Amino acid sequence: MSDNSYVDTSYSSASIDALRERIAQAVNDVRKQTPLAQSFTNFVTINLVANAQLAAGGTAAMSFLPDDIVDTAEIAGSNYINVGTLLPFYKEALPQIAYKLHKNGKTWVLDPVAAGIGKTRTAILESFRTYPPTIVRGNASEIIALDAMWGLAASDSAAPGTRPAGVEAVDEVDAAIEAARRMARHLAKHSPSGKGAVAVSGAVDLVTDGEHTFRLPGGSAMMTKITGAGCSLGGVTATYLAVAEPLVAAVSASLLYNRASEIAERESNGPGSFQVALLDALWNVTAEQVATSEIIED
Amino acid sequence: MSDNSYVDTSYSSASIDALRERIAQAVNDVRKQTPLAQSFTNFVTINLVANAQLAAGGTAAMSFLPDDIVDTAEIAGSNYINVGTLLPFYKEALPQIAYKLHKNGKTWVLDPVAAGIGKTRTAILESFRTYPPTIVRGNASEIIALDAMWGLAASDSAAPGTRPAGVEAVDEVDAAIEAARRMARHLAKHSPSGKGAVAVSGAVDLVTDGEHTFRLPGGSAMMTKITGAGCSLGGVTATYLAVAEPLVAAVSASLLYNRASEIAERESNGPGSFQVALLDALWNVTAEQVATSEIIED
Amino acid sequence: MSDNSYVDTSYSSASIDALRERIAQAVNDVRKQTPLAQSFTNFVTINLVANAQLAAGGTAAMSFLPDDIVDTAEIAGSNYINVGTLLPFYKEALPQIAYKLHKNGKTWVLDPVAAGIGKTRTAILESFRTYPPTIVRGNASEIIALDAMWGLAASDSAAPGTRPAGVEAVDEVDAAIEAARRMARHLAKHSPSGKGAVAVSGAVDLVTDGEHTFRLPGGSAMMTKITGAGCSLGGVTATYLAVAEPLVAAVSASLLYNRASEIAERESNGPGSFQVALLDALWNVTAEQVATSEIIED
Repeated sequence: MSDNSYVDTSYSSASIDALRERIAQAVNDVRKQTPLAQSFTNFVTINLVANAQLAAGGTAAMSFLPDDIVDTAEIAGSNYINVGTLLPFYKEALPQIAYKLHKNGKTWVLDPVAAGIGKTRTAILESFRTYPPTIVRGNASEIIALDAMWGLAASDSAAPGTRPAGVEAVDEVDAAIEAARRMARHLAKHSPSGKGAVAVSGAVDLVTDGEHTFRLPGGSAMMTKITGAGCSLGGVTATYLAVAEPLVAAVSASLLYNRASEIAERESNGPGSFQVALLDALWNVTAEQVATSEIIED
Repeated sequence: MSDNSYVDTSYSSASIDALRERIAQAVNDVRKQTPLAQSFTNFVTINLVANAQLAAGGTAAMSFLPDDIVDTAEIAGSNYINVGTLLPFYKEALPQIAYKLHKNGKTWVLDPVAAGIGKTRTAILESFRTYPPTIVRGNASEIIALDAMWGLAASDSAAPGTRPAGVEAVDEVDAAIEAARRMARHLAKHSPSGKGAVAVSGAVDLVTDGEHTFRLPGGSAMMTKITGAGCSLGGVTATYLAVAEPLVAAVSASLLYNRASEIAERESNGPGSFQVALLDALWNVTAEQVATSEIIED
Repeated sequence: MSDNSYVDTSYSSASIDALRERIAQAVNDVRKQTPLAQSFTNFVTINLVANAQLAAGGTAAMSFLPDDIVDTAEIAGSNYINVGTLLPFYKEALPQIAYKLHKNGKTWVLDPVAAGIGKTRTAILESFRTYPPTIVRGNASEIIALDAMWGLAASDSAAPGTRPAGVEAVDEVDAAIEAARRMARHLAKHSPSGKGAVAVSGAVDLVTDGEHTFRLPGGSAMMTKITGAGCSLGGVTATYLAVAEPLVAAVSASLLYNRASEIAERESNGPGSFQVALLDALWNVTAEQVATSEIIED
C-alpha cells in the first residue's frame, strides 16, 4: 500500500507506549485548553452531550442553522453531527453543513444513529459520502449499514469486495471490523489532515484508523440503561478531536468513557444515580487512569 | 350492555387477585423482554421519558418524521404520542402518523398535555378522534377537555349526555370519571384488540377500561415539583402496553410510578435528588411491591 | 435627569434594607403563589429551565407556537425568551411573539445567548428593539453586543455616545456597565410598568434598573461546568418577575442562584452531582439566606 498517501505512518512502529503518551496528553490538553466543540445533535440527549463535553473539560455550543454552524465553526476546534432524532428541515440543512465544513477545512465527528431506519435519514447519511466526517462513531450495525450505503466495499482497493465474516457473530463488534477499516480509509482520503478514524462501540470497543486497529475492553453494562451514552461519547470524541489527531481522539474518548462508566457503576444504585456519577467521573478520572488502560492491538 | 362488542369480559369476575397476577407479569415481562416503545414527545421532557422507559426495563426510540415513525413502529411493541410543546410541522405530521398507526394495526398511548390551549393543539387532538390511541393518560382537566373536543358525551350510548358532577370538585379526578369511562369505550371501539383504557393522574390515580374502574392511592407530591413526571409515566405506560393489554398496562405503570415516587421521596432532599432517586427506584422496585399495591375498585 | 419620565424613583432613598425586604418577599411569594412563567427557550437546557423554575417554587410551561404563547400568556405571570439554539421557524415566530406580548401588556425576560453569532440570531435580536423585554439577563459580551445591535449608545440621552471603558477589562462585567444601564433605561421606556432591569452575570453579578446598580458577589465556578446555568437563571428571573418589579426580580434571582450554587459546590463531587445539588438548593435555601446576601451599590 506504499502508493496510498493516506496511510498514517506515525503508527508504523506500532508502539502502544507512544499512543499512551498521546492519550495522556489529549486528556490533559482538553482540561487545560477547554476547547470548544460544536454539536448538531438530537434533542433527546443534547443536554447530556453538552454536559459530558463540559465534564471532560471542554466547552459546548449546540447549533442547527447553517449560518450559526458556519460562524461557530470558525471559533470551534471541531464539530459533531448526530442523526438520532430528525426534524424535517435537517434533510436540507445537513448536506449543506457537511459541504461547508469540508470547504472550510473543518474536522467533524459523525454519529450515524439508527442508520438504515427511515428514508430521510438514509438520504442524509448518503449525502455525507462525498464530504465525509473525520471520525465516525457508532455501534456495529450502524457502521455496517453506513458502509453499505456508501458502497465502500466495492471501491476500497485495500479490501475489494470483502464482507464481514458474519453479521450474526456473537461479538457484534467483530462483524464490523472490515467495514470500519475501509470506512476509516475513506475518511482519511477526504480529511484535511489526511487522517481519519472509526470507533465501534460494543462490549469491547474497537477503534481503527484503517491501518492500526485497537480493542478497548471494559466499561459498564449500565451504559445501555441510560439514554445518550453513545451520543455523549460521540460529543466527547469531538472535544478530543479539537486537540488531537483522529485515532488518538477516538481512543482517548472511548477509554475515558470506559473508565468513567466503571467508576459510576460502583458508585451508583440504578440508572438515575449512574448518569450523575458518570458525569462526576468524567470530571474526576485522571489522565493516568485513562492512558494506562488495557489496549489490545488487533 | 350485552350488545357492546367492546366490553372487556376478562374482568367480568372482577377479581382483583387476577389483576394483581397480570400486573406482576407485566412488570417482569418488561424486564425480561426489554420491549421497544417508540415516542413522539415534547422536547422539554423527552430525555426523562426515554430514561424512565429504560429504567422500567424497556428500550426507547424517539421519532418525529412520519417515515421514521412507520419504520420504527414495525419493530416497536407500542408507541407514545405527547402533545406537550408543539412545533409548527406537528400539525401536518401528527394526523398522518395517527392514521398510519391505525392502518398498520399499531397500539399507542396519547398524553393530551395542555388540551384546550392553542388552536394548533386543538386541531391535532380533534384529528385523533377518528384514529384514536389505545390508551389516554392525562390529568382530570385534560381528560375532560379531550372528551369535550371529541363530543363523546353526545355519542356514547352507555352514558348519553351526562356531564361530570362538578369540575370544581375537591378531588379533581372525580370530575373526570364519566369522561374517562366513555373515552375508554370510544378507544376500545377503534382498538386493534377491541380494548382500550384511560388513566387519570391525580392525588389518587384512576384507571378505567370503560367497564371496570380502579383507584390507585399513594405516590408523592414531589412528582409535581419536577417536570416530566406525567410525560414519563405516559411513556412507561407505552412500554407496558408492549407486553400487556391496555387496562393492565395503564394500572401497572401507574402503580410502578406510585411506589417508585414514594421511595424517591424518602431518599431525596429536594427536586434534583428526587428525580435521580425516581429513576433508581423505577429500576429497583420489585414486581411484588408493584402488584401488592392498594387497588380500590370503584 | 429630571425630565426622564422613566426614572425609577422608588429607589431614590437607595435603601438597601428596603431592597432586602422586597427580596425576602419575592422569594416567599413565589413559594406561596407558585406563579406560572412561560418560556420559549433553547432545546439544550429547556428541561433544566423548567426544573429550576419548579425548584424555586414556581410552575413552568414551555411553548414555541405563537397561538400557544398568546393563550398561555393570558394565564402566566410573566414570560421568558432565550435565543440560544435556533430553529428555522424562530425567525418568523419570535418577532410576532414579542409584538403580541407587547400589545397585550405582558412582561418578559430576554436571554440574548450568543448575541452576535449567526445572521438569523442577529435579525431576531434586532427585531426586539421596538417591542423589548422587561428584563435582559446575559453575560457581559452578550449585553455589549445587544446594546450595539440596538444602537442604544447613540440614542440614550443620559449617556450619549459613551462606550465601555474597555471590553478587555479583567473583570468583564465592568466592561458592560454603561451598556447595561442604558439598556435598562430603554427597557423601562417601553415597559408596561415603566420599569426595566438588566442583569449581567459574571464572577460578580451586576444588576441595574438604569438608575441604581448593584453588585452581587459570590456563587460558584462550577456554574460554568454545567450547561444551562445561565439559561435557568433567566427562567427563574421570569418566575420572580411574576411577583415582583423588574429590579427586585433580577436581584432576587441572581442572589438565589449565588447562594444555591455555593451550597451545591460544597455538597457535590463533580458537575453531575453539582446540578442535582443545585436544584435541591434552589428548593431548600431560605428567603432569609437570600435576602441577607452581600449587596454592593455601585
